[in-house]
Amino acid sequence: MTDITRADGRSVDQLRPITIERGWSKQAEGSALISFGNTKVLCTASFTNGVPRWLTGKGKGWITAEYAMLPRATNDRNDRESVKGKVGGRTHEISRLIGRALRAVVDTKALGENTIVIDCDVLQADGGTRTAAITGAYVALADAIEWGRGKKFIGQKAQVLFDSVSAVSVGIIDGEPMLDLAYVEDVRAETDMNVVVTGRGLFVEVQGTAEGAPFDKRELDALLELGVNGCAELRDIQTAALAGEATA
Amino acid sequence: MTDITRADGRSVDQLRPITIERGWSKQAEGSALISFGNTKVLCTASFTNGVPRWLTGKGKGWITAEYAMLPRATNDRNDRESVKGKVGGRTHEISRLIGRALRAVVDTKALGENTIVIDCDVLQADGGTRTAAITGAYVALADAIEWGRGKKFIGQKAQVLFDSVSAVSVGIIDGEPMLDLAYVEDVRAETDMNVVVTGRGLFVEVQGTAEGAPFDKRELDALLELGVNGCAELRDIQTAALAGEATA
Amino acid sequence: MTDITRADGRSVDQLRPITIERGWSKQAEGSALISFGNTKVLCTASFTNGVPRWLTGKGKGWITAEYAMLPRATNDRNDRESVKGKVGGRTHEISRLIGRALRAVVDTKALGENTIVIDCDVLQADGGTRTAAITGAYVALADAIEWGRGKKFIGQKAQVLFDSVSAVSVGIIDGEPMLDLAYVEDVRAETDMNVVVTGRGLFVEVQGTAEGAPFDKRELDALLELGVNGCAELRDIQTAALAGEATA
Amino acid sequence: MTDITRADGRSVDQLRPITIERGWSKQAEGSALISFGNTKVLCTASFTNGVPRWLTGKGKGWITAEYAMLPRATNDRNDRESVKGKVGGRTHEISRLIGRALRAVVDTKALGENTIVIDCDVLQADGGTRTAAITGAYVALADAIEWGRGKKFIGQKAQVLFDSVSAVSVGIIDGEPMLDLAYVEDVRAETDMNVVVTGRGLFVEVQGTAEGAPFDKRELDALLELGVNGCAELRDIQTAALAGEATA
Amino acid sequence: MTDITRADGRSVDQLRPITIERGWSKQAEGSALISFGNTKVLCTASFTNGVPRWLTGKGKGWITAEYAMLPRATNDRNDRESVKGKVGGRTHEISRLIGRALRAVVDTKALGENTIVIDCDVLQADGGTRTAAITGAYVALADAIEWGRGKKFIGQKAQVLFDSVSAVSVGIIDGEPMLDLAYVEDVRAETDMNVVVTGRGLFVEVQGTAEGAPFDKRELDALLELGVNGCAELRDIQTAALAGEATA
Amino acid sequence: MTDITRADGRSVDQLRPITIERGWSKQAEGSALISFGNTKVLCTASFTNGVPRWLTGKGKGWITAEYAMLPRATNDRNDRESVKGKVGGRTHEISRLIGRALRAVVDTKALGENTIVIDCDVLQADGGTRTAAITGAYVALADAIEWGRGKKFIGQKAQVLFDSVSAVSVGIIDGEPMLDLAYVEDVRAETDMNVVVTGRGLFVEVQGTAEGAPFDKRELDALLELGVNGCAELRDIQTAALAGEATA
Repeated sequence: MTDITRADGRSVDQLRPITIERGWSKQAEGSALISFGNTKVLCTASFTNGVPRWLTGKGKGWITAEYAMLPRATNDRNDRESVKGKVGGRTHEISRLIGRALRAVVDTKALGENTIVIDCDVLQADGGTRTAAITGAYVALADAIEWGRGKKFIGQKAQVLFDSVSAVSVGIIDGEPMLDLAYVEDVRAETDMNVVVTGRGLFVEVQGTAEGAPFDKRELDALLELGVNGCAELRDIQTAALAGEATA
Repeated sequence: MTDITRADGRSVDQLRPITIERGWSKQAEGSALISFGNTKVLCTASFTNGVPRWLTGKGKGWITAEYAMLPRATNDRNDRESVKGKVGGRTHEISRLIGRALRAVVDTKALGENTIVIDCDVLQADGGTRTAAITGAYVALADAIEWGRGKKFIGQKAQVLFDSVSAVSVGIIDGEPMLDLAYVEDVRAETDMNVVVTGRGLFVEVQGTAEGAPFDKRELDALLELGVNGCAELRDIQTAALAGEATA
Repeated sequence: MTDITRADGRSVDQLRPITIERGWSKQAEGSALISFGNTKVLCTASFTNGVPRWLTGKGKGWITAEYAMLPRATNDRNDRESVKGKVGGRTHEISRLIGRALRAVVDTKALGENTIVIDCDVLQADGGTRTAAITGAYVALADAIEWGRGKKFIGQKAQVLFDSVSAVSVGIIDGEPMLDLAYVEDVRAETDMNVVVTGRGLFVEVQGTAEGAPFDKRELDALLELGVNGCAELRDIQTAALAGEATA
Repeated sequence: MTDITRADGRSVDQLRPITIERGWSKQAEGSALISFGNTKVLCTASFTNGVPRWLTGKGKGWITAEYAMLPRATNDRNDRESVKGKVGGRTHEISRLIGRALRAVVDTKALGENTIVIDCDVLQADGGTRTAAITGAYVALADAIEWGRGKKFIGQKAQVLFDSVSAVSVGIIDGEPMLDLAYVEDVRAETDMNVVVTGRGLFVEVQGTAEGAPFDKRELDALLELGVNGCAELRDIQTAALAGEATA
Repeated sequence: MTDITRADGRSVDQLRPITIERGWSKQAEGSALISFGNTKVLCTASFTNGVPRWLTGKGKGWITAEYAMLPRATNDRNDRESVKGKVGGRTHEISRLIGRALRAVVDTKALGENTIVIDCDVLQADGGTRTAAITGAYVALADAIEWGRGKKFIGQKAQVLFDSVSAVSVGIIDGEPMLDLAYVEDVRAETDMNVVVTGRGLFVEVQGTAEGAPFDKRELDALLELGVNGCAELRDIQTAALAGEATA
Repeated sequence: MTDITRADGRSVDQLRPITIERGWSKQAEGSALISFGNTKVLCTASFTNGVPRWLTGKGKGWITAEYAMLPRATNDRNDRESVKGKVGGRTHEISRLIGRALRAVVDTKALGENTIVIDCDVLQADGGTRTAAITGAYVALADAIEWGRGKKFIGQKAQVLFDSVSAVSVGIIDGEPMLDLAYVEDVRAETDMNVVVTGRGLFVEVQGTAEGAPFDKRELDALLELGVNGCAELRDIQTAALAGEATA
């Protein structure tokens, strides 16, 4: 790592300030308002006893996620997808990513025939909304599972979560690999990568895209290392949030 | 008024605690996160220089509003309208109401050929979401107008807002007229009314509906009086919010 | 009331010529082609034994309404909502209003587990289409209920309708409150109000909107008085229509 | 032809009672409420000076048609296509057929750069709605063209219509070819055919379908003869309607 | 017939080269890639044991068809109907035609409670896509029925197909009736007709449209004769294809 | 690598038989029917002189892609997205991936103000459809660019493609990394990865997903190596295809 200083004064391997307001929602069975700097995502987990019809009787639960942005979460207002009458490709793609990330650490048999729907709504966007969403969603999910246990929908000793999961973006800007890109960095990145990593440090998802120039194996390795380290920090912040009282 | 005490300890003519976090959004030209008790609505105003094609060249501006709820703003999760592929009747109706309420206090000629889109997104719902939306939207609108003035899109002396506007719900529960219904009250109300009132105390909109039993003129008058008084209080809170620094 | 004469020669408190062709449709269980002057609305009531799944087993019936306009009911042709692929906000809003108005006079327990769908299709529009729709829909509904009684789906002594319901528009034009606005009046109105009133003279719905200037309590009272009187006349016309043989 | 008597007493080569209320709509530039027995279709023609962008500058006009049914035009209520969010296959097919039939007798150069949209809305359906629609649409179209001539959008001597057009259904029931099928006949027909014929007796469209058993050339010829004769009668009724004053 | 030579050297009563690659798809229960010259349509038949709910318990099967074109099957690229969010009128119309044509030769009682869905996807279009689709679909259908018999979903002796079916386009160009129009001919045709004929030579569907000038009975008869003869040739090609081994 | 033998007899680092029928489509400016074993994808490139409005005047071209599957490309029939009225998340995601992959090797300035739309339609699916689509799309794109050069829409010396691009799937099955998964392998894979690599061996996209167990860095490296080698083979097949005459 060089001693490059970034627009917001961070070093290349430094996360933005991360905050998690656990229990932000009065109604949801689990919730977290997570901030990665100016990126703010409200994650709620809705617990329902029972599963969709196609899964009934298989002794397994179901977890799914939906991602969306408020129309003015961004610098320019975007038309609402409800008004346009369809969900865009990017929205779909991120919703599917969040769902896969969470399912990777869940034992659906231990969850039993229960459904948890995670909603990740971006209230303010400044880069890294999908990774903030995954990181916050895990906290909301963990609380919803405990809610279900309290209601006896889940066995008292069932180990539903066998690991935690968090995510962070990394990218190469002016040839330099950097952690947790803010929007101004993201638009300039030659390569953009999102890594989803478990608490134990294993990969759940690696999505790297050459936005500018194609990248080589050495660059890929540098990005992965930054990402794994960033996710380890996020894991510790998740653990601390879940250890305390729900703050909101 | 009798000395009935309500579930949350309020008197029949008392508003819930009202807070306005003006300037909540870093990106929007005007914004307010408004709370009527546990009802929380994020209102953003997006200013664009220019007007839709059908209005071009008429020397007038355009103001429109969109209302929506996050899927888990309510006790039970609602499917997203974007996923359903269409905006529901209730959503349409409230969006139109908010737009009309704001336009009633705006001189579109003074606004000039500028467009302001107001988004009201309910983050948490506990009754009165449309009235909170109107009340918060006015604050966001006022700030967006001043932003436009600062950018010279609006004349320095143009009086765009010739009055303020706020709204509140009133209803009859067990025969008793009450102000600012929370959700548990709303579902029990025999009659439900929303009043939109200007800062000067004139009506912009009166929408009363018999949910249970039809109502008579005496009851209607009692509700209107409660509503007018409630809106006067809200006007003072709006004025205070706009007098200070944007808090967020 | 002053002695102002209106474009069509009516006094300010005079309804347009009202006609009701009861039983216009050969197929529907109840129907009425209603005219308020040049406004013509075909109202049909479709009776089905049984209720939607979510209401099954509760011993209650269901009444719902849909409003629509033919594309060339108006001076300029409007695109069909079927072709646009979605129902517009105004259509939704009026459909909901008609449904609420009818349900306000129906005892759904007496109706039993039966469903009545009311369709109000505007064949020609000249102002007041929603109020004509409500007034005609009541007649169609009453006949459909009797049809259901004849078929023994409803008890012989069940009092399903505990009151009648009609509606009329009122508005202020050039400062003058007027009853039953034709289209040319409607577009000039400063304030526009629809009142839905039962046969006994109680309010079911009051929707007043300041299209031009906000209005005060005195004006509101004048409009309500005009509306209540107009609805009393409409009630008598409904009663006469239902007393005779179905004419068509 | 045998002396078979049909359910409604007609002979096999007899049309149902046909009525045309020309000028039914106060707003449309041309209109006709046509009845083929209990089938009633409101046809309106909307005239616009100018053509769609893709046709601009070619010196030719444009004629198009849309067909729809009211939800309770039929014995059982059908969901509205606007509510379903899409136009069904049958509706599309009939709209296209009506448009082709009318364009077959129009000289679009003589029409000049004008657009006429024909709306055919079935108010009551009892078989043969598409053929009634074509027959009524021609009358509405003829009046709209004269309206355009009166407004000088069309040259005083331009022969826009070089022929008339009408349509009728024919079918084979119990082996017997019959003219103008009512609904109870239509559902029993082994072969169902719609013929669209000009005033001079030439074919514009022949659509024959084996609903039950495939048919041979002899049967086809018998059906065509019935259809051509039926259309000649319809042509005379159209001529009479257009010769008189618009009745409504 | 005169000795006119067509653009591709055919005589007026000559089909284009017809090929059928039976069993093109590895997955479908029946399939055929059919070519009428440069028109190529992939027809697959999907067999499902069971019927849609509305048909359950009636002892009858169900056959339906869907037609579509790849976006660049044509000279200019067409937007995908999936992206436009709706199926166009032409697509609907042809899908319905194919379904009717196939059902005309199927004994649905002999089929038993089984469903066969035929998909006809145009890979390359050069006129006559709907007639190629019907002709190929019959081959795919026949194979799917034999598959079902092999699986014992259909009785060993059940005669599901009581005839074969094929289709061809005919049209009048420069006054001359011609068989099997290629695209360059189709766009010039004054009259365009599709005939669907059974193996025994009976009509299933006759759809003739005057694109330019209306046509008379003599022309209609000439077209029908060409069509019947063309379908007889196609029947022989189908028979040969089904007699051999599936080639792909 | 161990000497494990796969279901189809391949070694773990062996591609399925790859064929490219270049110029399959008579109409498209570039096309390729590519097979990866039983996976068959028809790729067409549609060249248009000009760019979308938002890009006009910037001296740059535009390349976009759409992916879709025929309904019976798979073992079980899928409903058409056109009939469902919306494009699914998976389809969107793959369309976006193909577009990004192609744009990564294109100099849009050298392309000039021209648009190329790539359609990748899966005719038969047996795993790896998105990677086959990218690999075939490159060939279609290259031909469309040469077509544009021939038409003088692109400069004679403009180097539009500065590299080639191909893609392949890799995955871990029973702990063993394998190249180019067929469907039966894909469903059993613990980890599934798609790599998109340029002709020079640089990464354009790396998308790895833990379907079963999360994976570690060593496994990731093994998969990347397999993928890079597979893409080098595919590059040679592309080069050979482009060197010859278009075969179809």
